[in-house]
Amino acid sequence: MITQYLDKNKKFIDEKLDTYLPKATAYPRIIHEAMRYSVLDGGKRIRPILVLESSKLCGGKIKDAIYLACAIELIHSYSLIHDDLPSMDDADTRRGRPSCHVKYGEALAILVGDSLLTLAFNLIARIRDKAKTGEIIFEISKAIGSFGMIGGQVMDLKIKKAKKVDLSTIEYVNLRKTASLIAAATKTGAIIAGASDKEIDILQKYGEYIGLAFQIVDDILDKNGYVEVFGIKGAREESQKLVNKAKDILESFGAKANNLKGIADYILNREK
Amino acid sequence: MITQYLDKNKKFIDEKLDTYLPKATAYPRIIHEAMRYSVLDGGKRIRPILVLESSKLCGGKIKDAIYLACAIELIHSYSLIHDDLPSMDDADTRRGRPSCHVKYGEALAILVGDSLLTLAFNLIARIRDKAKTGEIIFEISKAIGSFGMIGGQVMDLKIKKAKKVDLSTIEYVNLRKTASLIAAATKTGAIIAGASDKEIDILQKYGEYIGLAFQIVDDILDKNGYVEVFGIKGAREESQKLVNKAKDILESFGAKANNLKGIADYILNREK
Repeated sequence: MITQYLDKNKKFIDEKLDTYLPKATAYPRIIHEAMRYSVLDGGKRIRPILVLESSKLCGGKIKDAIYLACAIELIHSYSLIHDDLPSMDDADTRRGRPSCHVKYGEALAILVGDSLLTLAFNLIARIRDKAKTGEIIFEISKAIGSFGMIGGQVMDLKIKKAKKVDLSTIEYVNLRKTASLIAAATKTGAIIAGASDKEIDILQKYGEYIGLAFQIVDDILDKNGYVEVFGIKGAREESQKLVNKAKDILESFGAKANNLKGIADYILNREK
Repeated sequence: MITQYLDKNKKFIDEKLDTYLPKATAYPRIIHEAMRYSVLDGGKRIRPILVLESSKLCGGKIKDAIYLACAIELIHSYSLIHDDLPSMDDADTRRGRPSCHVKYGEALAILVGDSLLTLAFNLIARIRDKAKTGEIIFEISKAIGSFGMIGGQVMDLKIKKAKKVDLSTIEYVNLRKTASLIAAATKTGAIIAGASDKEIDILQKYGEYIGLAFQIVDDILDKNGYVEVFGIKGAREESQKLVNKAKDILESFGAKANNLKGIADYILNREK
């Protein structure tokens, strides 16, 4: 069962995050406590699991990919903390708890985000195969920069302010804000395993398809974005189509890709 | 003359920053325009010049160190933008112009800082000698993370809020908030040149001494921090002592280190 697989891997990732994050007693305590509060919050750890599974699929070892997996999760956490800030989406809660700035104040929340982004690159720099570090950092920094995830957030803020949506902007936002990081996770998971160019390309496309589906499912649950343009029915059809594409593109891997196919279905059927 | 040397190098760095920053017309335009506004603002470019000069001193080539030099300046810019935010130091101006959040709004200013930090790591990933990329990113991310520059800002905010200072906290803030990044600049400049461990160690110490002096001179000009504990006279003596140490530690390099010695004196005598 995919949920058992996800649960087991979530526990493993949580243990590693706990190890790699600074201790809550380390000076200055307040920022380390806040970093831990924000990261160790019961997230599903889909992105780091995708790194590990993509790497495994291409013949990589867990111990080589775990720093990268945790780095991707820290980047995800940083983006949530900054997105939740009063000047951005102004979200008071995150996963049923006070969001970082509500609990620790706005200044600290900004610095917690900055610290997690910085720690993510520090973790990637610890990868043993130094020849791959540069390529992986290049890919990830491109995916999450002003032409990637941050660009997506810029346009998302613009849409929310304008209170009207158009298809091309929605597609830009979904691709950049959500799919970019997920595709970077699966792509760099393949890179760290020493995958062929063709395998890397497949894993990136798989990540992009499920990343887009992920955001459309979010839009369905939140009744905005894609749903405002195409309605619930259109959004359901599109997310199903994307998940089918994601599974089809893995065909050449055969049964070895069953976990990634299961994750694609899980993303489609999730309820927050 | 050191000022001519600094001017010439500043122009070179400005040209490279202009090239490496995304074009102002690139989509989403607003963030790229704001990134350029914040970076191309007439800074003195001391930190990237220190990278290039440290690298040159250890036998490195400018073309190998220029990505790293510009990355360090982008990190400096990011830290200023986030420090200026209303919830932090609430500074309306920066180098005589409206600060980023005053001109572009708070949300965008946060994202501009995030983008510059991300772009900095992207530039470092472009370094040709891939074997060094991991080591350099490890050093820099350590220097600017929650145990380094960000830790310094956390404690600086705490001091300002408490409106009282104690020596050990001031020393922590000066070392972390300012000297960390400057020492990382000189240290990684040496690393990229393939310097010996001894040379790397000297360049790091030199950076730490002038970084501490830099912050004390700032405190003298702003009449706070170190000056509140030791008075103007004590602060002047301490900064002079640090600059002497910085120059002394370079002795083994002989006349080749004259530019770095000149920069140390320049930092001591600067008037903002």
